[in-house]
Amino acid sequence: MRDQPAMLFDLDGTLVDSVYQHVLAWRRALFDQGFDLSAWRIHRRVGMSGGLLVHALGRELGHQFSESQVQEVQAAHARYFREVGEGIHPLPGASHLLQELTRRRVLVAVATSGTRETAGASLRKLGLGTGVPVVTRDEVPFAKPDPDLFLAAAERLGAPVASCIVVGDSVWDILAARRAGALGVGVLSGGYSRQELEVAGAFRVYHDPAALEQRLDELGIRM
Amino acid sequence: MRDQPAMLFDLDGTLVDSVYQHVLAWRRALFDQGFDLSAWRIHRRVGMSGGLLVHALGRELGHQFSESQVQEVQAAHARYFREVGEGIHPLPGASHLLQELTRRRVLVAVATSGTRETAGASLRKLGLGTGVPVVTRDEVPFAKPDPDLFLAAAERLGAPVASCIVVGDSVWDILAARRAGALGVGVLSGGYSRQELEVAGAFRVYHDPAALEQRLDELGIRM
Repeated sequence: MRDQPAMLFDLDGTLVDSVYQHVLAWRRALFDQGFDLSAWRIHRRVGMSGGLLVHALGRELGHQFSESQVQEVQAAHARYFREVGEGIHPLPGASHLLQELTRRRVLVAVATSGTRETAGASLRKLGLGTGVPVVTRDEVPFAKPDPDLFLAAAERLGAPVASCIVVGDSVWDILAARRAGALGVGVLSGGYSRQELEVAGAFRVYHDPAALEQRLDELGIRM
Repeated sequence: MRDQPAMLFDLDGTLVDSVYQHVLAWRRALFDQGFDLSAWRIHRRVGMSGGLLVHALGRELGHQFSESQVQEVQAAHARYFREVGEGIHPLPGASHLLQELTRRRVLVAVATSGTRETAGASLRKLGLGTGVPVVTRDEVPFAKPDPDLFLAAAERLGAPVASCIVVGDSVWDILAARRAGALGVGVLSGGYSRQELEVAGAFRVYHDPAALEQRLDELGIRM
């Protein structure tokens, strides 16, 4: 019997319901620096590396952030996000999906553009088993939409990236998946629309981890 | 010279940047009642009347809310939303757009599914002139996606609704506009995608009020 494909999961908006809190934490952090940036514009950048996000938003504002400003905004974002930590919950079916995949001998890893520090709270809420490697922004030169996080996660699993399935809620996950040579699958649980994810190249789009688990056969994951 | 079309504006996500705060206020209010509903599902319902929103989300959870539960959830939402009141800001160009329309002798009104109480803070941030009528959920039998709010707003202006342009960020605005017989125009500033608004029937979709003001001629609004 052929090996099952390995699965690489994004964290925020894919396994935990944290995108809206991230959006408002970035909005407050930018506002502290004097930048009144609309929430929807931030929403469409979440999932990128924090540094890239701040620079990209700066361009939309016609402002060139200095490296120290970027660091201040990132620190403030981490602080505001910690404040709402108690309000972060796993998405429906997230833990069950990971258990079910392990039961089916599917190798699983998590790859997030968040730092080890910011991702920590979300990972704890998820109750991730010790057998699931987690690659964070601190461990690679470039976060999404560069392919490094997914390449590192595949390597950690000893799986060829071309046979991996990447699951993410943002178009940056799908772009990073394509650049890594993996198959991208979308979930709506980060607040992007189905069409945005499909246009970005998602092979399938599911509501959330619970809906994905019901349709694993569509991805060639056998019982 | 022919009269200019009148313009009817939604409030949250269209003139003020408040949708993400509303989403999290609803999420907390539902969680207090024991319902762990994902933020993205709430996001796609915001803009509806609060009662309809709670009932609709209940159905997604397979739960029939009692009327007293609906009232409790609505009261908790209003309380949580008040907490973040200071973090609510007008969207780029919102005040300037309304001034410019008045200067061009375009009749303008605001029509929101929010209650007078919840909308109050947002309206104050906007610094709305006294010449702009505001119709809230308290004043009509049914809020969006029913057409009542826009019909009442047009009547308040003495304008035939068929010549009105409705501007909103959600598909519920566009549906209510169609049911009222008005022309629907979308803005991305509530976090819906362009495709969702276009599929719902928006004639045009702009980033936000500032972008709309730059293209008023596309809507037949003359200098």
